[in-house]
Amino acid sequence: MKNFNYNIPTKVLFGRGKVNEVGKEAKRYGDKVLLVYGKGSVKKSGLFDVVVESLKKSGIHIYKLPNIDPNPRIDSVYAGAELCRKMGINLIIAMGGGSVIDCSKAIAAQANYYGDVWQDLYVEQKLNTLTSALPVASILTLAATGSEMNGNSVISNMHTNQKLAIGHDLLRPVFSILDPEYTFTVNQYHTAAGVVDILSHLFEQYFTPDQEGYLQNRLMEAMMKTVIEYGPIAYNELDDYEARANLMWTSSLALNGMVTYGKVSTDWATHGMEHELSAFYDITHGVGLGILTPYWMKYVLSEENVHRFVEYGKNVWNLDGENNMEIANKAINKTREFFSSLGIPSTLKEVGIDESKLDKMAEQATMFGALGSMKKLYKEDVLAIYKMAL
Amino acid sequence: MKNFNYNIPTKVLFGRGKVNEVGKEAKRYGDKVLLVYGKGSVKKSGLFDVVVESLKKSGIHIYKLPNIDPNPRIDSVYAGAELCRKMGINLIIAMGGGSVIDCSKAIAAQANYYGDVWQDLYVEQKLNTLTSALPVASILTLAATGSEMNGNSVISNMHTNQKLAIGHDLLRPVFSILDPEYTFTVNQYHTAAGVVDILSHLFEQYFTPDQEGYLQNRLMEAMMKTVIEYGPIAYNELDDYEARANLMWTSSLALNGMVTYGKVSTDWATHGMEHELSAFYDITHGVGLGILTPYWMKYVLSEENVHRFVEYGKNVWNLDGENNMEIANKAINKTREFFSSLGIPSTLKEVGIDESKLDKMAEQATMFGALGSMKKLYKEDVLAIYKMAL
Repeated sequence: MKNFNYNIPTKVLFGRGKVNEVGKEAKRYGDKVLLVYGKGSVKKSGLFDVVVESLKKSGIHIYKLPNIDPNPRIDSVYAGAELCRKMGINLIIAMGGGSVIDCSKAIAAQANYYGDVWQDLYVEQKLNTLTSALPVASILTLAATGSEMNGNSVISNMHTNQKLAIGHDLLRPVFSILDPEYTFTVNQYHTAAGVVDILSHLFEQYFTPDQEGYLQNRLMEAMMKTVIEYGPIAYNELDDYEARANLMWTSSLALNGMVTYGKVSTDWATHGMEHELSAFYDITHGVGLGILTPYWMKYVLSEENVHRFVEYGKNVWNLDGENNMEIANKAINKTREFFSSLGIPSTLKEVGIDESKLDKMAEQATMFGALGSMKKLYKEDVLAIYKMAL
Repeated sequence: MKNFNYNIPTKVLFGRGKVNEVGKEAKRYGDKVLLVYGKGSVKKSGLFDVVVESLKKSGIHIYKLPNIDPNPRIDSVYAGAELCRKMGINLIIAMGGGSVIDCSKAIAAQANYYGDVWQDLYVEQKLNTLTSALPVASILTLAATGSEMNGNSVISNMHTNQKLAIGHDLLRPVFSILDPEYTFTVNQYHTAAGVVDILSHLFEQYFTPDQEGYLQNRLMEAMMKTVIEYGPIAYNELDDYEARANLMWTSSLALNGMVTYGKVSTDWATHGMEHELSAFYDITHGVGLGILTPYWMKYVLSEENVHRFVEYGKNVWNLDGENNMEIANKAINKTREFFSSLGIPSTLKEVGIDESKLDKMAEQATMFGALGSMKKLYKEDVLAIYKMAL
């Protein structure tokens, strides 16, 4: 096991009615809050009114930044940071899914920053230049990205066709409120995309070439089983509380760092490849991951790493077979079947992506070097996987 | 899933050489540290010198409270609290296993307390009367109790033959240093007892009559598998780093609250029964648990809860069988065999306990009411289990 410093200070208020506590929690940070949210689903669901009422009860002044995009843009970040500085905001509360939370973290970073976070942090990855940030909290309405408990933020720049990520402990939410009932209104399509996203986060941390991390790998199998158990239930019964609760809590634990602390490596190649799809075509992140993941598995599978796929097949899918390669291939097929059962397309063509930009996307996906650890993926490898997925 | 507030702020520094960072971490809390430790094994292992050097380098004044007993006594708590008040201690650092950490937490509670923590907190459980405590940190030398990441403390009172527990978030260590190399010197006997203790913590939270907690139960199975994989390796090869590291990190995650948040109930009957054994006979906690656990399983197993034992048998031991009762019984036998493979006795007689005090112990084990949730255990039930174990 590799050395690590475990540090997950985010407080989580989980369950029915917890939103009513937002005012009391927020008050610890001051009396000026910036509410960040999307295109209005939080108003339709009634969440917005509950939050505003609780904040007002605690004597908090509310400022608003609505209309955050599903792939949040750097332009929203600049606008939010400007507002924070002008109004002297004490706490940013993101209401929504990963996009809104990621955007809020970027705003929190930019608000007190001397330079341009896009260039310095997202492009050049000079993470140690960030020495302070406004506190961020979140009220989650979509189980998927795990952003509610980690310091990660993914931002898109449509001017440069780039979608880039950072991770910084200063950007971990100080508290997050997770009420599964507010995910009942997530439709089948986005429920499916969320389920794929959670599984993909687990795959990216699970499929690694090293032998260490026994405990971590078993914990991830436990989470995969949970998603496989409850994903279809939530998909078919959008207001099943137990299913929504298990998905929501799994999404947080899957990407708060816990399952990676102590592991020697992670992969993240599939996310790297997918980010280009949504940067160029603005498709739903989870759908892109669902298309690519089984092709990635087939492409990287080898005699050297087959044992990892065998563990996955046996422990997650209860598979058996004549030999390791057979079990591994069965496990990959199971993965595709599971995604298909949730209505996730299995080709890029189905989401309107043709050959025209594959080369450019493969180029950009590998601009910082090869992707992945199970197998190093260079531009030609990424292109080959994109072509398999056509 | 039940509502919960997740709050695990303990920072964990895990791995080789991390002890050298104790001075830097401690300095955040002030410059007067009370070092609490046992009968000298920390001196033999060299840990003591490393800690003292690091603290001195950071300009910290060191006060000492040695000779803490394996089942820590309330008398040590009073002595430590007195020292803290007299010297103006800023931080208590426990060096050792669960006993030393539990004792340090009790000292931290007593130091600023207006009354007697034994009577008010341990006996009467008036937990809300504790409104502040000195910060506690730990340097762990035995993987077992999980005390390094939670707010639990078990203290014995040899005057009254009582061993009682409390849990309070104010007593969670502010940081804990876990270097698996410092557990290499734990002998086979105590390694085995620690392995049983970790498994028992998982059983106490896993075996519950409710149907909810799918994710939590899968996470606990992942931890059980890890203990079953690495327990025998550490037992047979005391200095196997990977085995010690997996056991150590599992012991922390198994009892920091994570796997219980969201579950409707827990059991803890076996711990309740064992506490009397060590209160009356001062035997090793993990050994007492190892003797009692399979008898407890047999006693509580019923048609109503057999599915929980089937999950355990299938998911942890890969068992199958003609019917549920067969799988359940196989799983219980596997548990006993596993303990026996680590040299854990299977009867009370083997550790010098005869019939003479069973009635008195059963009386005391149930003095606050029935134990457990899988099956409510009244005095007669506890006595029956003790007798099975003779």
